[in-house]
Amino acid sequence: MNIIGIDVGGMSIKGGICTENGKITHSFSVKTNKYDENYSISADIAKVIGELLQMSGIKTEDIAGIGIGHPGVVDSANGVVKYSNNIALENVPLVAELKMRYDAEYYLNNDANCAVLGEMLFGSAKGAKDVVLITLGTGVGSGIVIDGKLFEGRESGGAEAGHTVIVSGGNQCNCGRRGCYETYASVSALIRQTKKAMENAPDSLMHRIADENGQVDGKTAFAAAKLGDAAALQVVNSYIGYVSEGLINIANVFRPEIIIIGGGISREGDFLIDKLAGDMAWQTFGGSHNPRVEVRAAQLFNNAGILGAAALVLNKKSKN
Amino acid sequence: MNIIGIDVGGMSIKGGICTENGKITHSFSVKTNKYDENYSISADIAKVIGELLQMSGIKTEDIAGIGIGHPGVVDSANGVVKYSNNIALENVPLVAELKMRYDAEYYLNNDANCAVLGEMLFGSAKGAKDVVLITLGTGVGSGIVIDGKLFEGRESGGAEAGHTVIVSGGNQCNCGRRGCYETYASVSALIRQTKKAMENAPDSLMHRIADENGQVDGKTAFAAAKLGDAAALQVVNSYIGYVSEGLINIANVFRPEIIIIGGGISREGDFLIDKLAGDMAWQTFGGSHNPRVEVRAAQLFNNAGILGAAALVLNKKSKN
Repeated sequence: MNIIGIDVGGMSIKGGICTENGKITHSFSVKTNKYDENYSISADIAKVIGELLQMSGIKTEDIAGIGIGHPGVVDSANGVVKYSNNIALENVPLVAELKMRYDAEYYLNNDANCAVLGEMLFGSAKGAKDVVLITLGTGVGSGIVIDGKLFEGRESGGAEAGHTVIVSGGNQCNCGRRGCYETYASVSALIRQTKKAMENAPDSLMHRIADENGQVDGKTAFAAAKLGDAAALQVVNSYIGYVSEGLINIANVFRPEIIIIGGGISREGDFLIDKLAGDMAWQTFGGSHNPRVEVRAAQLFNNAGILGAAALVLNKKSKN
Repeated sequence: MNIIGIDVGGMSIKGGICTENGKITHSFSVKTNKYDENYSISADIAKVIGELLQMSGIKTEDIAGIGIGHPGVVDSANGVVKYSNNIALENVPLVAELKMRYDAEYYLNNDANCAVLGEMLFGSAKGAKDVVLITLGTGVGSGIVIDGKLFEGRESGGAEAGHTVIVSGGNQCNCGRRGCYETYASVSALIRQTKKAMENAPDSLMHRIADENGQVDGKTAFAAAKLGDAAALQVVNSYIGYVSEGLINIANVFRPEIIIIGGGISREGDFLIDKLAGDMAWQTFGGSHNPRVEVRAAQLFNNAGILGAAALVLNKKSKN
């Protein structure tokens, strides 16, 4: 079976032809031209699809489905991008526009929703049916699967765990509220927390690491903490505490089998995951009376977006 | 159709025979004898069932089902009360014990889960399919319905919105964490907040109202606020702010049609509901790009528990 997966991001649109086993046989990408007022994202997506078909020699009618993962508020039932801050789009009937260029079965969804399906089909949650994925990146995205089926909330308007307040009255969030999970647990938040700690700790290793790297990023505090730097360890512990807070909230509401941590930071591996898993084991509601919730790192890295979009097609087809 | 609904509480076990339209034709209750070490809750529930059958003249085989709403952690699939702090029970195979006395179809669930079904079938959410109920009482309970079906999390281990942290590092909660929603939005929390404000405002009307009433309770601040008392208004506004925080978190994750406020405090009516609805309209994620979430007061008061347990039977039967 040939599936096309399209991963729309703020920087680029990546596409791939995938098998039902998650093997990417062909891939192609273009830059996202997001600053042009008359920009048509569907024209660029169509360009990627066209290139993939040409390079593979596969005909449109032999494509089982085209999955698209898009950031922002997406109306999956009607194939419309309702709002994307990241690419400055509003009410774009993406699937209708694409159908005019290539007559195929399209499946559009939020990128975090695609990501959880990708991990469930091809990654760290194979075989599981109740899974939540939390992506720690510029913001905090979440994808929720209940009994094998994507849960999006009514009219795709839910599953925004990044926009649940964990510190009432806390940091200002882009969404208008204060103290949202993403203002404490995103990589952007970690970078702010790192910079603040560096100001107060001029001798910390974090300075040298940041200098060598040319900037403070999500790895700075982790790298210094692993070398035993006290100030960095404090940053990392505090940051992980915030990440835990949201994960345990999710566990108490959804009680999935697995919560997956996605985003670049998941590469910190056991240093991050073991601490989160410990908090989860000890702090979830009902203690041993309730089933355990595992914490795992995402397994799909560079191709997570393409494979997630392909998984969306497979998941939806299996539910029809 | 005759259904028996049983409402197990810390003070009493209430039972009723109900029609499928939510009319209670017979009712009976006994006190909960929770301090006896050898106490059998199933013996008392059986007593209520027996009395109901006798007073109505209905035979066991003519009862379509017996629904039981129980506080605490309940394994609904196996009919077991896993843990109830309120009545000091652990691992009681309630349905198996009751089946030995009366051979009927039993349905056991958490009381907040029953409550949301009751409101959906007979109360303020008639006709809706995506509904969350938040009960503000000693704690904060929650019942979640997705597409007409009760959502309990894996092995009934979820749907505990009262145990999601909204103030990281905040008030100590019974569950072991700090800052849970119920430590700010329960009636117990409101009473603490009221008492604290009264200490700092010796001239507040709250003192007179509490004296007349013999105690500070969940109505004290609301009553004084309605009379224009500034200190009380501050208590009420701050309290409603915390309630809102959790409701909007729920909206951003579940995006239901309606969130229902249950518990005695819901009788404060528009004074409470209008403010919550306003916060909901302005602060949910995605603004007008996402569907609206209504906030309503519960409609079933004294009989909410019995009708909720009866609704559990009807809901489960309709899904089979």
